[in-house]
Amino acid sequence: MKIGIVGGTGDIGEGMVMRLSPLYDVIIGSRDTEKAKSVCNCTLDVCEKRGDKPCTVVGASNQDAVTCADIVILAIPFKHLVSTLETLECFENKIVISPVNPMEKRNSFEFVPPSEGSAALLVQKMLPKSTRVCSAFNTIAANKWRALDEELAYSVPVCGDDADAKRQVMDIVNHISKLQAFDAGPLAVSSMVEALTPLLLNIARYNKMRDVGIQFC
Amino acid sequence: MKIGIVGGTGDIGEGMVMRLSPLYDVIIGSRDTEKAKSVCNCTLDVCEKRGDKPCTVVGASNQDAVTCADIVILAIPFKHLVSTLETLECFENKIVISPVNPMEKRNSFEFVPPSEGSAALLVQKMLPKSTRVCSAFNTIAANKWRALDEELAYSVPVCGDDADAKRQVMDIVNHISKLQAFDAGPLAVSSMVEALTPLLLNIARYNKMRDVGIQFC
Repeated sequence: MKIGIVGGTGDIGEGMVMRLSPLYDVIIGSRDTEKAKSVCNCTLDVCEKRGDKPCTVVGASNQDAVTCADIVILAIPFKHLVSTLETLECFENKIVISPVNPMEKRNSFEFVPPSEGSAALLVQKMLPKSTRVCSAFNTIAANKWRALDEELAYSVPVCGDDADAKRQVMDIVNHISKLQAFDAGPLAVSSMVEALTPLLLNIARYNKMRDVGIQFC
Repeated sequence: MKIGIVGGTGDIGEGMVMRLSPLYDVIIGSRDTEKAKSVCNCTLDVCEKRGDKPCTVVGASNQDAVTCADIVILAIPFKHLVSTLETLECFENKIVISPVNPMEKRNSFEFVPPSEGSAALLVQKMLPKSTRVCSAFNTIAANKWRALDEELAYSVPVCGDDADAKRQVMDIVNHISKLQAFDAGPLAVSSMVEALTPLLLNIARYNKMRDVGIQFC
């Protein structure tokens, strides 16, 4: 299975690449292909040093990360979501994972969804009808993705309207470290998943914690 | 410290009474004072049988549960919140805890906040300026409150605008079983705490679980 990561050289994307490369064929997408190739080389070095099984990873453009992949992860901040999607095509029949959280830092972190109701619903609206969008990975902090020596012992709620796509996304989640996927319902209720992240950022801020995650129990 | 529980004979309220009575002076409020007295007698029996220290609990009206208490918990469903508060007075200078979650069961459970933004903000708007409102206990299921033989090993996010009131509420949370209070910021962001409950109900529903709770980690 080929996973393309749009924004694969960004804060969240780079750690995702490191975690996913030993498990799947990964295409690192970036606006700057040279940067993607650099992250690719770095990933190959890390995999070799860690003794992971040889990983298949290439550095490419964001468009290549879409075109060449079966599953595309949009590892980009909400503020760049629309402008990035407007430059990309070939999403037909693909599964797209949105880990995007529409939020703003005012006095506290606040959930500020678009008029569609959530970032995932906005993505579904912008992409072709044959694209199956799921939200997942919303609450895993960038630092945790990158900390390869730490287990990721978190719950991951997954929303989506297509049962087969959701099953595939949950399967990917369950293969990464100790992440545990939970079906959180259709995309229509993805706003409640996206609202977790500003909540967790507030919990971290007001309780002097770092990179707070969540477990359902 | 005297804690009054408005709706103390309801689904959530009854278990709260059982858990709080060995720790604090509790006034059970109900529209039906006889029912409150019956829950009171039941609580006294349970406390005696469990060998808890003698508990101080009385059955009364909802108004008494406000008038006689230092801290009032509104253990009522969102749909009865406004009509109940309209019948009650004497909230001046009290701390009020809202565990109320505005939600509806459509195809999935959905967070449907009032125009104020959250149930807690609506409560603050309806009550006198001297009343200090906090949201807390939003995600603890009624069955878990009642299951006295089970530890409550959950995280409890607490929102509020008054630092002293929030500290007192967090202190109460931390005295109950293994609950752990977390400062989740001002009341302005309480919607993200209230949205947790429909999310958890969806998680339970779509993953064949019961009474799902949450831990920050």
